[in-house]
Amino acid sequence: MVKIIIGAGTPSLVAPSAEPASVTAPAFSAVRGRTLKLIEPLSPEDACAQSMTACSPAKWHLAHTTWFFDVLVLDAFGLERPSTGDGLRVLFNSYYNALGSQFDKSMRGALTRPALDEVIAYRAQIDAAIARAIESGLDDRALAAIELGLHHEMQHQELLLADIKHLFSVNPLRPAYLDAPLERAAPAGPTQWRRFEGGLRSIGRDAESDGFAYDCEGPEHPGMLHGFELADRCVTNAEWLEFIADGGYQRPELWLDDGWKRARAEDWSAPLYWSMRDAAWDEFTLRGPAPLDPDRPVCHVSYFEADAFARWAGARLPTEFEWESAAVELDCEASTCDLLEGGELHPRVGEPGAPLRAALGGVWEWTASDYAPYPGYAIPAGAVGEYNAKFMHGRRVLRGGCCATPMAHVRASYRNYYAPDDRWPFAGVRLARQPQATAGK
Amino acid sequence: MVKIIIGAGTPSLVAPSAEPASVTAPAFSAVRGRTLKLIEPLSPEDACAQSMTACSPAKWHLAHTTWFFDVLVLDAFGLERPSTGDGLRVLFNSYYNALGSQFDKSMRGALTRPALDEVIAYRAQIDAAIARAIESGLDDRALAAIELGLHHEMQHQELLLADIKHLFSVNPLRPAYLDAPLERAAPAGPTQWRRFEGGLRSIGRDAESDGFAYDCEGPEHPGMLHGFELADRCVTNAEWLEFIADGGYQRPELWLDDGWKRARAEDWSAPLYWSMRDAAWDEFTLRGPAPLDPDRPVCHVSYFEADAFARWAGARLPTEFEWESAAVELDCEASTCDLLEGGELHPRVGEPGAPLRAALGGVWEWTASDYAPYPGYAIPAGAVGEYNAKFMHGRRVLRGGCCATPMAHVRASYRNYYAPDDRWPFAGVRLARQPQATAGK
Amino acid sequence: MVKIIIGAGTPSLVAPSAEPASVTAPAFSAVRGRTLKLIEPLSPEDACAQSMTACSPAKWHLAHTTWFFDVLVLDAFGLERPSTGDGLRVLFNSYYNALGSQFDKSMRGALTRPALDEVIAYRAQIDAAIARAIESGLDDRALAAIELGLHHEMQHQELLLADIKHLFSVNPLRPAYLDAPLERAAPAGPTQWRRFEGGLRSIGRDAESDGFAYDCEGPEHPGMLHGFELADRCVTNAEWLEFIADGGYQRPELWLDDGWKRARAEDWSAPLYWSMRDAAWDEFTLRGPAPLDPDRPVCHVSYFEADAFARWAGARLPTEFEWESAAVELDCEASTCDLLEGGELHPRVGEPGAPLRAALGGVWEWTASDYAPYPGYAIPAGAVGEYNAKFMHGRRVLRGGCCATPMAHVRASYRNYYAPDDRWPFAGVRLARQPQATAGK
Amino acid sequence: MVKIIIGAGTPSLVAPSAEPASVTAPAFSAVRGRTLKLIEPLSPEDACAQSMTACSPAKWHLAHTTWFFDVLVLDAFGLERPSTGDGLRVLFNSYYNALGSQFDKSMRGALTRPALDEVIAYRAQIDAAIARAIESGLDDRALAAIELGLHHEMQHQELLLADIKHLFSVNPLRPAYLDAPLERAAPAGPTQWRRFEGGLRSIGRDAESDGFAYDCEGPEHPGMLHGFELADRCVTNAEWLEFIADGGYQRPELWLDDGWKRARAEDWSAPLYWSMRDAAWDEFTLRGPAPLDPDRPVCHVSYFEADAFARWAGARLPTEFEWESAAVELDCEASTCDLLEGGELHPRVGEPGAPLRAALGGVWEWTASDYAPYPGYAIPAGAVGEYNAKFMHGRRVLRGGCCATPMAHVRASYRNYYAPDDRWPFAGVRLARQPQATAGK
Repeated sequence: MVKIIIGAGTPSLVAPSAEPASVTAPAFSAVRGRTLKLIEPLSPEDACAQSMTACSPAKWHLAHTTWFFDVLVLDAFGLERPSTGDGLRVLFNSYYNALGSQFDKSMRGALTRPALDEVIAYRAQIDAAIARAIESGLDDRALAAIELGLHHEMQHQELLLADIKHLFSVNPLRPAYLDAPLERAAPAGPTQWRRFEGGLRSIGRDAESDGFAYDCEGPEHPGMLHGFELADRCVTNAEWLEFIADGGYQRPELWLDDGWKRARAEDWSAPLYWSMRDAAWDEFTLRGPAPLDPDRPVCHVSYFEADAFARWAGARLPTEFEWESAAVELDCEASTCDLLEGGELHPRVGEPGAPLRAALGGVWEWTASDYAPYPGYAIPAGAVGEYNAKFMHGRRVLRGGCCATPMAHVRASYRNYYAPDDRWPFAGVRLARQPQATAGK
Repeated sequence: MVKIIIGAGTPSLVAPSAEPASVTAPAFSAVRGRTLKLIEPLSPEDACAQSMTACSPAKWHLAHTTWFFDVLVLDAFGLERPSTGDGLRVLFNSYYNALGSQFDKSMRGALTRPALDEVIAYRAQIDAAIARAIESGLDDRALAAIELGLHHEMQHQELLLADIKHLFSVNPLRPAYLDAPLERAAPAGPTQWRRFEGGLRSIGRDAESDGFAYDCEGPEHPGMLHGFELADRCVTNAEWLEFIADGGYQRPELWLDDGWKRARAEDWSAPLYWSMRDAAWDEFTLRGPAPLDPDRPVCHVSYFEADAFARWAGARLPTEFEWESAAVELDCEASTCDLLEGGELHPRVGEPGAPLRAALGGVWEWTASDYAPYPGYAIPAGAVGEYNAKFMHGRRVLRGGCCATPMAHVRASYRNYYAPDDRWPFAGVRLARQPQATAGK
Repeated sequence: MVKIIIGAGTPSLVAPSAEPASVTAPAFSAVRGRTLKLIEPLSPEDACAQSMTACSPAKWHLAHTTWFFDVLVLDAFGLERPSTGDGLRVLFNSYYNALGSQFDKSMRGALTRPALDEVIAYRAQIDAAIARAIESGLDDRALAAIELGLHHEMQHQELLLADIKHLFSVNPLRPAYLDAPLERAAPAGPTQWRRFEGGLRSIGRDAESDGFAYDCEGPEHPGMLHGFELADRCVTNAEWLEFIADGGYQRPELWLDDGWKRARAEDWSAPLYWSMRDAAWDEFTLRGPAPLDPDRPVCHVSYFEADAFARWAGARLPTEFEWESAAVELDCEASTCDLLEGGELHPRVGEPGAPLRAALGGVWEWTASDYAPYPGYAIPAGAVGEYNAKFMHGRRVLRGGCCATPMAHVRASYRNYYAPDDRWPFAGVRLARQPQATAGK
Repeated sequence: MVKIIIGAGTPSLVAPSAEPASVTAPAFSAVRGRTLKLIEPLSPEDACAQSMTACSPAKWHLAHTTWFFDVLVLDAFGLERPSTGDGLRVLFNSYYNALGSQFDKSMRGALTRPALDEVIAYRAQIDAAIARAIESGLDDRALAAIELGLHHEMQHQELLLADIKHLFSVNPLRPAYLDAPLERAAPAGPTQWRRFEGGLRSIGRDAESDGFAYDCEGPEHPGMLHGFELADRCVTNAEWLEFIADGGYQRPELWLDDGWKRARAEDWSAPLYWSMRDAAWDEFTLRGPAPLDPDRPVCHVSYFEADAFARWAGARLPTEFEWESAAVELDCEASTCDLLEGGELHPRVGEPGAPLRAALGGVWEWTASDYAPYPGYAIPAGAVGEYNAKFMHGRRVLRGGCCATPMAHVRASYRNYYAPDDRWPFAGVRLARQPQATAGK
């Protein structure tokens, strides 16, 4: 079995699937091409700017994902690579100490050179080299590295959209990434509570399982589930307005101590992209500013806000063990519609009647769980080992994928993670609670 | 059953025991008297100063623990209280928003008034009022509140010692809290690994159990234990010197990302109280500076350092589930010797042959566990609810008690917690690891 | 002529007078005794605490002024000194790099040892040694060093009072340094403008002049004075209330850019020690809290506030050249009454009719002048050179002395200086303006 | 005489000249066209990025200088203006509170929209409107406002170059703004000291004088000059290397207290753009990296470094009174060669034999003077008043212009100013000293 495991852009590491047979030149090209599709609405300036340290310029995403194939595939496996691009390597390494020094992350917006065109040309050269290599036949280890690179690329596709949204949001001109305005969503309907019985359950995915998974998604392991209930849909904007109206952002008793301090220091009074204009709320979206839609799920809230809301609502956030158990038991399906095929790039609560509405593909759902290794998880050897476990502190796990996640990147076992005060990811809230005497439906 | 639950000084909340029958006037007096005993070596200036925000002046500990009985017992139950001391209440509230405004924690050292004598007089008045109340007969709820106050007092006794140690450590005169110098410890001997089999286990203590427990120690609940091994003793200073010599503080691959940033920002290169003098390490102790004793357990390291050491050693930190299961299975006994009866106020690794040497009473042992609610834990109603769960973020659990913990305050279910960069508690490291093929005992 | 010149506690350096003949054992003893008198109202805790980095504990002032005589007189001139106190030297050096390492200024409050008694004993030993030396006969250089030490001591006497005032002000018990409450002042009367004609004037004092002066007070030098007018008294609290009522703290157009940023960052809305209680302003004084007296001069304002007030009033702050020229021309007399002889330790506007009311001894008066060397000023050689010019950046000059300045320390040529955002000194505002057509005398 | 006075981009305000007759459509067009010429080497990305808060993107300079003519000329005088560009106004206001709210300066790099093309189109529209207005005949007040706008534009031309230099310097690819590499300069030769006698002198320029001047350059006023000597040329890189070799950056006794703290906090060890490569110093220039030229003047040092160097050299910095008196007495001529006509954009020490070599047009020369109002200076009424005096704190005056200053913007009375820790302006050091017994030539 293949054991090459390499770190990814922001979060994760990987245990390649048993059968990277799906790595073909056309599949490779399709994923890579999707990134280029994503930057079509951007000017060179849009692609170069960085609006905060946590975000990266689109051009950087383009270059860094290419660097990945250049260094971790072509170089690593001794394959033929173009002679250009050497100067770009130090610029587009993200955080792999073992792979050379790194450019200050907060200054990525200052990298006006190389130009966007040069980066796109670099992409084309590397893509051609990889395609040649695939067609000439590669062993499983190399194919696994390419598969990993493709998942890494898909992660960055979502990041690119989240980062562009932030960039455009700070511009007083409030430009739209996509021109067509957002539709009003259908009524969300009341929350239904799904009940889950306690007992031994297994979560996690082993490297031996079908399909791709990052290493931190395994090993599969049993755990004791305690009976609980889970909301069938996420919290809506309408419900969040009630929270605000009830003083949710002013009442310390609703907040974790760390959250209260951060909320006061940054003067939070609503989700990140909400603003009050002419006495009404609007929300900044990738389709430009829109009146706040009460039936859409709340999005762009921090863990601290999610936790405060849950407390206010007399509920709590689910653990990731609960979340994955529920999603597996109910056999949830991914519902994200790909932006390249008419996707809105803004979340919906999902169809009524689904067991867990929009669990896979609406908003990333904050869980109560610290990002920590599963029992039996072993830090991989080599460079990978440096970069995997090192983020297993100070982050909370999110589950489910969002409206900006490529469909092929959404799965029930996926462990996304962010710092508890991060607000720019597409993150919302699904509530859990103890089983009720007169139960949920 | 009694349901009054109230927050405590730094960490915790409480589910009083079913039978607070042990609350008698002599027992009350004994615990309270111990605090006065602790300040005997201090001058009024020593008792007033605060060396960093996380620490409090000894006088503040004296006053705040008294405030607790004044407000949360005498007031709360309508008992007779002295007419004095009203002005002190706002000063010595710690963080209970529901109980009035609070004085800036970082400025406690500026409270030169009231004088130490006045605080001691206030203690005497409140003590007399409580003693009268106990003798006149109290219902279970009031007795439970007093019991809670006594555990709160014991927590502060340990904090007082940790805070004084920090205060004295920053003074270039390096004064000793106790005059007699520290003895050289016996050889620690090699680590033995204890093996524990996997399976369902229960940890946690319910309010209905015998003896006192804070509310966060429950409810008792089953969980899935995965087989593991645990070191029979804590890491020694000698072993820590090897870590340093091997570049432990200079190698990013050994550290969590957050830990590495903090270590670099604060330039950590050894445990908190170590210093190099004349080409040899010494350690600052409550008995003054002493040559570093290679056979004592390392103490005053942060979670980040503990985690880095474990990685370097090819091991890991135990979870709190593992720790408590092991301590219960092996029926560990508390070994702390009370400082008022000749205690050293400095840790030892414990007697060879004990199943887990000095597990209860050596050093607080960092676990890998985020401080989080147990399954089924319900946030108590009222003021208590405000102060309990609010610390359940950003802290790591420590287990076992230390050489400065009062004996009656040490138990296997106790969940202490600190921020991952706190170094002034008496905290050290016990390693865990996956079961080995050719196993330990 | 004597050329030994040494740095002083906070601000200054010194050119000893030609005739230090006034240095006698009784004179020495009188100045030193006054410091002890000042600490009589303080407990050991009061004397040990430090309420912000800019302030020092009273005990530190006691020790540091003694260190000065110990190191810069006894040591420097090879005189007999007591064998004790060696450990204290590093603690009580203030900022003389050339004279050894220094203890972190922000941590002076943590120096609970040596105890106050020990510091007082150290004072007595050094005093005895100095007295013996004086009586045994000293050369001019040594006498000049002692004279300097006495002026240094007087500076610290004022600092000690300012620092204690700050310490007591942050204590919610608001203790009084002196028990007798403050009297209501007589009506201040309207401002009269004094007119001064332009022309060549000389300011500054040479080392050769009569009486003592710090080195930065010289050399005497001519300059071009431009005609101006100066208010005969300082701005009163009543006038400051008008400034507040007119939005003075909310209007950016009144403020220097740096001042506005600081005012907003620290949320200034009134002078430092004012607070609104029960819908009326009170002011914290060394005699405890008092109702704001409209006829007293405003005190404890920063340079930025003084400048904003002047702009609001259609005036400006005087330059130090203007200030000294005016004070010399009008032959102003010091009016401070010594606190040890019934002084209020709170400023008055001074007697009507005086040419410049309370110019010497009311409040320190902010000038528009950057603290910079006079033309021809030469940085002294040796350790002194290190410490003199180094503060000649980022400070503004204040003139005139205040109600807490010892009478012997008040003179027209004295150049005090503070950072433009310092508010804890006894500093107020005297306005200047261009000559008016129909001018007022 | 015209009295309209308006604030400028970074520093200053203006008293227009008596005769703005020089404002013709061709003259206007020439100055405006020069800005467009300056951005020719830039890509859209280069023009959008901001490498630190003190710098602005080139696109912002293009737009802001246009905003000036749009709002402060067309609007202010009721002239016809194009209907476009309304949305740009809030974006490109710099700091005029009276003229609407301002976009966060630190985020200017995030303004990817409007695109560079749109900004250039906006320029063209406004330029056409101004040209039409000039040709149709304007009164003196409007012509004066245009003249002011042109000087404002010239200030921004220099800033644009300084900001691009900083942007390119942080890019590891180290791109060149101009392609041709820098020539080695001729030997600088030894410093000659020019001696100036003391006496009454007048400096400053009144609004009534010939030619344009900012308001802070006046009023003309007499002052007392004390005899001094001034170096005939600026300090060279070779001399700075001696300072470094002698421990200049490591010796606190050479530094102002504030400067030492800043130097340590930012770890200064050489001028801003110097770096050690392969054991030799190079310097980053607008023509790319170049070997350090020992005969060029040192450039890109802060006031603090300039002052430390002067102390090390046994000299001092001149006051601005000294500087202007000397330049006027010696009738210095501007020597800057315009970059558009083959200028190097890097300073030279100037021709030997000139009275003060390269005093006008080499490097900006730090003076010892605080930026403060001249005697008799009156804050202008209206919006201008808000923005003029408000920077008269915390800045030091620089004199002389630099290699990046347009020739028409260089004059002896010009008072440039920066914060004492600013290093990205083209600033260097000319030494002054007291008259020597055996005099200078």
